[in-house]
Amino acid sequence: MSGLEAADRRALAREQPAKSERWPRTERRQARIRSVLSRRQPDLTVVLENIHDPHNVSAILRSCDAVGVLRAHAVYTIEEPPPGAFARQTSASAAKWVDVLRHDSVAACYEALRADGFQVLVTSLGPESRSLYERDLTAPTALVLGNEMRGASPEASGLSDGAIEIPMMGMVQSLNVSVACAVCLYEAFRQRWHAGDYEASKLDASALLSLEEDWLRR
Amino acid sequence: MSGLEAADRRALAREQPAKSERWPRTERRQARIRSVLSRRQPDLTVVLENIHDPHNVSAILRSCDAVGVLRAHAVYTIEEPPPGAFARQTSASAAKWVDVLRHDSVAACYEALRADGFQVLVTSLGPESRSLYERDLTAPTALVLGNEMRGASPEASGLSDGAIEIPMMGMVQSLNVSVACAVCLYEAFRQRWHAGDYEASKLDASALLSLEEDWLRR
Repeated sequence: MSGLEAADRRALAREQPAKSERWPRTERRQARIRSVLSRRQPDLTVVLENIHDPHNVSAILRSCDAVGVLRAHAVYTIEEPPPGAFARQTSASAAKWVDVLRHDSVAACYEALRADGFQVLVTSLGPESRSLYERDLTAPTALVLGNEMRGASPEASGLSDGAIEIPMMGMVQSLNVSVACAVCLYEAFRQRWHAGDYEASKLDASALLSLEEDWLRR
Repeated sequence: MSGLEAADRRALAREQPAKSERWPRTERRQARIRSVLSRRQPDLTVVLENIHDPHNVSAILRSCDAVGVLRAHAVYTIEEPPPGAFARQTSASAAKWVDVLRHDSVAACYEALRADGFQVLVTSLGPESRSLYERDLTAPTALVLGNEMRGASPEASGLSDGAIEIPMMGMVQSLNVSVACAVCLYEAFRQRWHAGDYEASKLDASALLSLEEDWLRR
């Protein structure tokens, strides 16, 4: 939202630390970090499978931050990750606030997710896919987003627990991948908001403290 | 959605007309056009106010097509429209299927919208803005999207009927403008789907026929 982009730049300008202090630990910044961490959803994540365009990676991580994804996942088996796309840069970069775990293969990624209790849903069109709005996204959910041109790989689809389809009423049968990701994540947000998932922290006290220390140093 | 992008390119390849016929009027194409037109929402639209980046314009029009916007609006008072962004090109270009009406001023644009019964809502952050999820988007609604850096102009905000805010739970206080547009449009889709707004055509028989003739020639 463009108004927010302007507001963001102002917030960023305000947040610039004085040159003498490397990690400004103002009360206000600490309170903000604590508040954001208390709304993080450790049971909601995305898997970026060979996403090629750095602007798409950046927009996806921004949506992740906005709905409270704590940690995202990436599998780059066909191409290299876009240079710099996952680097923590300025406070305005969502990559600073959403850690991305890289996996060597789709199988290893899904195994790790399932060990943490996630259902793994691929965003794609197909006879077996179900509408986004029919899925229970309050359950621990990992959304797999495939490459811009090829879509999710056969392996990523085949090993998943199901497919999500965004209903499309128009002539053009596709959405930009970062747009599709945001539509899915905000439907998860909507369901979770109604379920009260943002009212109390899902992270336990020691995880909160440790993450707060970590974030204050970013 | 990347899988859909690939599917889209295949659909496009299939749709290429034989060189001898300029406007392929196959039964299949006609049925598709008729079906899409019958789901168009003439009472849902967007206003692009000085949107600068052609990729954002393109992604916004794609989301418009996907949820059934029949006609979008543009106001370029500060800068020129991005070259080519509104041109009808290939079948895969949403600009081919979403007409964009240009207005000379915000006031003239809003006047035209109000004459057609639209509520005009600006997407922005502010004390007076209400959550996207508290708005009734089944009512005739125009969503105003402002410039990437400056946001909606004071005039666009001041003359509007209210502001919509996308809830944000993270550290970064902004979303890409095309992402924000899609999140708003798909919430409108969700509400309208539940209200049965896609079940019967909102265009009357003569409008459907005339648009069908027009689209078959595109």
